[in-house]
Amino acid sequence: MTKVQISLDVMIQSLLESKKYATLRDMLVTMNPADIAGVFLELPSASLPLLFRLLPKELAADTFVEMDEDCQELLITGFSDRELKEVLDELYVDDAVDLIEEMPASVVKRILRQAAPEMRQMINEILKYPEDSAGSIMTTEYVNLRPQMTVSEALQRIRRTGVDKETIYTCYVTTPDRKLCGIVTAKALLLSDSDALISDIMEENIISVQTSAHQEEVALMFNKYGFLAMPVVDQEQRLVGIVTVDDAIDVIQEETTEDMEIMAAITPSERPYLRTGVFSTFKQRIPWLLLLMVSATFTGMIISSFEEALAAQVVLTAFIPMLMDTGGNSGSQASVTIVRGLSLNEIQFKDVFRVVWKEFRVGLLCGLVLSAANFVKLLLLDRVAITVAAVVCSTLFVTVLLAKLVGCSLPMLAKKVGFDPAVMASPFITTIVDALSLMLYFQIASMLLGI
Amino acid sequence: MTKVQISLDVMIQSLLESKKYATLRDMLVTMNPADIAGVFLELPSASLPLLFRLLPKELAADTFVEMDEDCQELLITGFSDRELKEVLDELYVDDAVDLIEEMPASVVKRILRQAAPEMRQMINEILKYPEDSAGSIMTTEYVNLRPQMTVSEALQRIRRTGVDKETIYTCYVTTPDRKLCGIVTAKALLLSDSDALISDIMEENIISVQTSAHQEEVALMFNKYGFLAMPVVDQEQRLVGIVTVDDAIDVIQEETTEDMEIMAAITPSERPYLRTGVFSTFKQRIPWLLLLMVSATFTGMIISSFEEALAAQVVLTAFIPMLMDTGGNSGSQASVTIVRGLSLNEIQFKDVFRVVWKEFRVGLLCGLVLSAANFVKLLLLDRVAITVAAVVCSTLFVTVLLAKLVGCSLPMLAKKVGFDPAVMASPFITTIVDALSLMLYFQIASMLLGI
Repeated sequence: MTKVQISLDVMIQSLLESKKYATLRDMLVTMNPADIAGVFLELPSASLPLLFRLLPKELAADTFVEMDEDCQELLITGFSDRELKEVLDELYVDDAVDLIEEMPASVVKRILRQAAPEMRQMINEILKYPEDSAGSIMTTEYVNLRPQMTVSEALQRIRRTGVDKETIYTCYVTTPDRKLCGIVTAKALLLSDSDALISDIMEENIISVQTSAHQEEVALMFNKYGFLAMPVVDQEQRLVGIVTVDDAIDVIQEETTEDMEIMAAITPSERPYLRTGVFSTFKQRIPWLLLLMVSATFTGMIISSFEEALAAQVVLTAFIPMLMDTGGNSGSQASVTIVRGLSLNEIQFKDVFRVVWKEFRVGLLCGLVLSAANFVKLLLLDRVAITVAAVVCSTLFVTVLLAKLVGCSLPMLAKKVGFDPAVMASPFITTIVDALSLMLYFQIASMLLGI
Repeated sequence: MTKVQISLDVMIQSLLESKKYATLRDMLVTMNPADIAGVFLELPSASLPLLFRLLPKELAADTFVEMDEDCQELLITGFSDRELKEVLDELYVDDAVDLIEEMPASVVKRILRQAAPEMRQMINEILKYPEDSAGSIMTTEYVNLRPQMTVSEALQRIRRTGVDKETIYTCYVTTPDRKLCGIVTAKALLLSDSDALISDIMEENIISVQTSAHQEEVALMFNKYGFLAMPVVDQEQRLVGIVTVDDAIDVIQEETTEDMEIMAAITPSERPYLRTGVFSTFKQRIPWLLLLMVSATFTGMIISSFEEALAAQVVLTAFIPMLMDTGGNSGSQASVTIVRGLSLNEIQFKDVFRVVWKEFRVGLLCGLVLSAANFVKLLLLDRVAITVAAVVCSTLFVTVLLAKLVGCSLPMLAKKVGFDPAVMASPFITTIVDALSLMLYFQIASMLLGI
């Protein structure tokens, strides 16, 4: 894929320089919109408006949707009002909303001025829902049927209005007061008698989401039920829009990236890494580093308060990194597993005792094996005194056990009190486990070594 | 959702005890297969066969597909040969393959014996592809059209054969030697004249994958192109199957979970956490903990070799945790960002210099802010000597910078040489950065403090 793209943008660049527009157009129309947008990204921005104008209207609009916001803004700025209107007329309303949400205010004004009145109304409708809600990612362009229609009337309606709908494969049956009363798939329509009634073939056990549902919840329902589209209803069960599976996949990827960023102590951003400026990346990372640095100084204070003991037994210092790292790793294993389970809905708060009991046993096993391995190594390789080995290994055992328990329970508690469990991943667990393990270490050392 | 399920399984349990089978059946048929499977999971296994037999044939098969492998095995063991055959006849072939891949050998034999000859042949076809390849997740049940058909002939064919196809919304046009020559959507069929030729309305710029492509690559293409199904071809471009979007979503979730597990130093497993035994979880975690523990002892050796210096300046010990943790966190931020970018194809190896240059600048900024903040704290709060503060802060600065550089470059190198970049996430980066930062610390200390 990459290799082809690399040679493609060089080729396109040189065709452009020699003004072979017909050839360029012939080449571009064989390509998929997502690939064209990919090639555009690699080209100097000055050539974009010219290339874009070579595309046939529909392909141009589809390509426009796939571009990143910088290319989009660049193109819109260069568009005449008529050109802007042409692109807008081809967009689905949810894509138009995405565009508006990412453009600066002056561009938004121009877009809304050029959009057809009906489109403008739909855009404003969707814009009023909170960010990341089902309402904000839905489209209002769906096929609407009535229960008393026949299959052939329904098919006729699809033929008449289908071209502008985001999907025609799932059709929504509503009552005159816009309440959703059934769902008919295009498959059911095609496989039924043409004079069958919609009310007879429609699925009446409807799974839908509220406009206020979080987009992550909607995406998980696609994962669970395998739908191609999901109806979005208001509090009175009136159908207001649908979410399609391609948008659900985007949400899944976006939410997962967000989870991973939070777990790595980064403030999430919606822009891809290579399109984010150095200063923005810095701002995503520095607050957490500062916060965690301050917490780590508490661990340092524990060491300071045992300075005399350490001076008497400097050998103990050498095992601090091993204890801290092993504790941190044990804790992360548990916390990352639980955070992921929670976000896939595989684990719920009611499972807290099963989880803790399981981690307790896993922690026992891991702690035993790690401290036994370490004990042998300390005696045979490092040749330390047996009491020192005992201090290190018993600390290791308790640390691993505690790390597993802290690692599994903090994300569940966070979920329970309404925080994002991902915050309770590696960095925080590590900081907490570090402090715990050092306190244990010196406590056990003072007991066993009498310092 | 959860609340409803909890009360449901209590209700079902009590209806079952009072033998209200008609009521149970009426209740179950209003439910979605995925929800029925969810309720079954909460019920005592002894009641499953009875409940399952209450379901109408098609719903029974759909529910069966949604169950976890333990429930499936339990049911199959209780099935008569006729019952097994009935369920198998309703399954799509890719679901049958999933089932076979997870059942023990004795159950597999029974399944293959009861499967219809045609189904058995398709199953064996798919089973020969390597695990996690496009071939292994595809289905062979697609709608096949010929270029010379008219739209009405195509629709007739869909009506006749469509009920057994996994999707009818994307139809595949092949030549007599089975080469894929075009794609027609059901939307195009419905919106075209009934006597138009398929060859005139089909899309000829086909995006397809090879049978050997990795499932993750296939899933990313769904993400990029927004398809509902993707054709899978062999090396001669003959169509052998299709992958549908619902399976692509499963792959995305599965691969992401795997990435996260590897990043947290866990050997990935395909079973959900709560369905994995304590000993299996232990085995997923202990090898990495042992390996990382051994690497951490190198860090300990660095401390040992500076034991005398430390004995002279015990105050230096107190800052070891802060240096190690901050270095580890800085490195993880970079590595997790890059690992995720690589797996979404947002970053490629050719971007390595852009990435390193960016991380260098981000590292400079982070290092400056962190060491400045620390310097002030060391002088004002901890009241250490200015030379000690200088040692700690210059070490911190260089550590953060190095951590960013190591964190971003190791995953890219891993990708380049064909390893999984996720292995180069937090734990490994932390271990490397720990060793680096301590070496620096003592080097700088011996220079500035003359110890």
